[in-house]
Amino acid sequence: MADLFPLPSSSLPAGFQWAAVQAGIKASGRADFAVALAQNGATAAAMFTSNRMTAAPLVIDKLHLEATGGRVRAIIVNSGNANCATGQVGYDACKQSCMAAAEIFNCPPAEVFPSSTGIIGVPLPVEKIIAALPAAKNALGAAPQNAEDFARGIMTTDTRPKVAHASFSVDGKPVRILGFAKGAGMIHPQLVPHATMLVYLFTDVSISAADLNTQLQAAVAESFNCISIDGDTSTNDTVLLSASGASGVEYAPTLAEEFSRALTAVCQSLAHQIVDDGEGVTHVVTLQVNGARSVADAKQVARAIAHSPLCKTAWSSGDPNWGRLIAAAGYSGVPIEPAQVSISIGPHKVFDHGTRGSFDEAATHQTMLQREFTITIELGMGEAACRFVTCDLTTEYVHINADYST
Amino acid sequence: MADLFPLPSSSLPAGFQWAAVQAGIKASGRADFAVALAQNGATAAAMFTSNRMTAAPLVIDKLHLEATGGRVRAIIVNSGNANCATGQVGYDACKQSCMAAAEIFNCPPAEVFPSSTGIIGVPLPVEKIIAALPAAKNALGAAPQNAEDFARGIMTTDTRPKVAHASFSVDGKPVRILGFAKGAGMIHPQLVPHATMLVYLFTDVSISAADLNTQLQAAVAESFNCISIDGDTSTNDTVLLSASGASGVEYAPTLAEEFSRALTAVCQSLAHQIVDDGEGVTHVVTLQVNGARSVADAKQVARAIAHSPLCKTAWSSGDPNWGRLIAAAGYSGVPIEPAQVSISIGPHKVFDHGTRGSFDEAATHQTMLQREFTITIELGMGEAACRFVTCDLTTEYVHINADYST
Repeated sequence: MADLFPLPSSSLPAGFQWAAVQAGIKASGRADFAVALAQNGATAAAMFTSNRMTAAPLVIDKLHLEATGGRVRAIIVNSGNANCATGQVGYDACKQSCMAAAEIFNCPPAEVFPSSTGIIGVPLPVEKIIAALPAAKNALGAAPQNAEDFARGIMTTDTRPKVAHASFSVDGKPVRILGFAKGAGMIHPQLVPHATMLVYLFTDVSISAADLNTQLQAAVAESFNCISIDGDTSTNDTVLLSASGASGVEYAPTLAEEFSRALTAVCQSLAHQIVDDGEGVTHVVTLQVNGARSVADAKQVARAIAHSPLCKTAWSSGDPNWGRLIAAAGYSGVPIEPAQVSISIGPHKVFDHGTRGSFDEAATHQTMLQREFTITIELGMGEAACRFVTCDLTTEYVHINADYST
Repeated sequence: MADLFPLPSSSLPAGFQWAAVQAGIKASGRADFAVALAQNGATAAAMFTSNRMTAAPLVIDKLHLEATGGRVRAIIVNSGNANCATGQVGYDACKQSCMAAAEIFNCPPAEVFPSSTGIIGVPLPVEKIIAALPAAKNALGAAPQNAEDFARGIMTTDTRPKVAHASFSVDGKPVRILGFAKGAGMIHPQLVPHATMLVYLFTDVSISAADLNTQLQAAVAESFNCISIDGDTSTNDTVLLSASGASGVEYAPTLAEEFSRALTAVCQSLAHQIVDDGEGVTHVVTLQVNGARSVADAKQVARAIAHSPLCKTAWSSGDPNWGRLIAAAGYSGVPIEPAQVSISIGPHKVFDHGTRGSFDEAATHQTMLQREFTITIELGMGEAACRFVTCDLTTEYVHINADYST
């Protein structure tokens, strides 16, 4: 995305350095080991997949954050291997990589935050990670190119790096938020591929881990928890927000709203980039659910539609198939009353209080031929709403995920 | 299916007649109006879709069964139009068809059981149904051909009729159970197509509506509620079980188990036929979940796997991708412990207590190239189990459901 790089220097939060190098985990020879360093440490908050099958690094990340009360210094991310379903061996390998990183970056092992993404069920070649640490340390820097290297280093089969930033000023001092993500891409079609979302957010405000956690929960609820590509939840999903304090600006309740707005904007941009780069995606569809009794209800209706193969295939061809939309809303589990419900595709009201709307089918089809369009569902049950970003289901998605060579 | 037709005369429950004629609802000119008549009435139990968006006939069916305390005489089924999302007009049209049928079959309107399947959102051409009633009455008969006509008359884009039967004897008198189903097929790609499951079960045992209801609930729980093609729940799904009593055999608690076995077998066969004839299906996959705390838990794990696009696409190419299976089980919502879980594809143990099993990948791939195979998931949490039948997700499925011509 030509407009993302090079990053403006002013977008980079102070107090962090980034790098990526080739550790030789990926057969492709691309950079597969990325490091972010908070030279003087940082407060941190993280959220992880709800999947019961969690990868070794996530188990260790949770222990580390608990032990430090929410501090990180070195974030080490390898791509090419997820270190998942690898048993005690995988757990030990992850611990070894933390010990080695702690030594080289001169911090307690518990201030190392490891992540892995790639093939699952294959032992992590930890010796390659340990061997790559000195080169990674040498490559660290706080220039735009270093940040871009990090963004590319965490990629698996993403077709492009994903980055977003926002900033605001307090008494003339800038506070920056910078985020990187890798999305749901195929890793290794011949083995056991797996899609994982990794997100790293950096800011230079000075803030407690507790406040950071409150901010992160709220921003994730309105961004990464409001997207879906295929409804499959990965074993390695991780979102980490760390704050260096190097801006000199102290977080305070009076800043909460402004910080929240900036953080949410960064998260929503990254979430949108993930869907946009989803496997086989030809249409990005925003579901705006209004008039729900609660946000939870609104999300439940959105999820039913976002996970419906019948809705998703219709979008792939621009078919204004309102029957599938109202049917999916009907089985969502939310006790909707169809006679209270209206649905619009773009400006076209396709379903109007229980029956077909009087819409122009050709014009609606034209709206749906655009890469992005919005479907608005008015439930008529209350005041709550949500905005959910999803995509179509194409033969290309099936091809990518069915590709298996014997 | 060559072995299903002609039906043996001995498979037909006494006390019923069947017919199907052309009412002219379908443009194809195929039979689109089917009737089943219990000449002397029958007790009845029914189950309907849980979708909040229900079609007009389902609303009326529920009222009728309530009014009669569970009795039916005439079952009238049109294909080509679902009479769903048609508002008051659709409701009135359905009532009109019941009035006309009541007159011609000389019974109270409440003993008419209407069903519709086809396009949704288009007004039901009730005048065509009313006009076709005399011809349907004339065509009624209790011969195998009449039953076969009924099976074909309820089809939409099913590629073949679906029928199953079972019988047992009580003091030398046969009790028969005969079932017909139409499955999840596309109806009209240019408009608002919809997939619906309709099932009609007939028996000649003499049984109260209450006992019939108990039997039906149990059989459906182990058959139609244990299948999934794409996870989309239709607005018109209906299962009706009616009993003429014409065998002369009185149902009694001592018969409960034998009747249950026969009824469940018929339902499971029909359920399997529906999946086997699903859109674009190339593999029918049985998920056997064992060691669950409850049947509900077992079904929840099975549903997560059955609805996972990543699992379903892997099956389409015979990819022994155990990572996707354990990941889907992991996000099912059931608190599994991966270290307690094992997964086998056919006889090949692909996941063994938290890590990859030591299986032969090529041999497992061979197993998965068969049209049908079983995946066994041992949860190690308890004693409950379920058997769930599902299918792969293919590019053909996407083609069929994305096909939209402007």
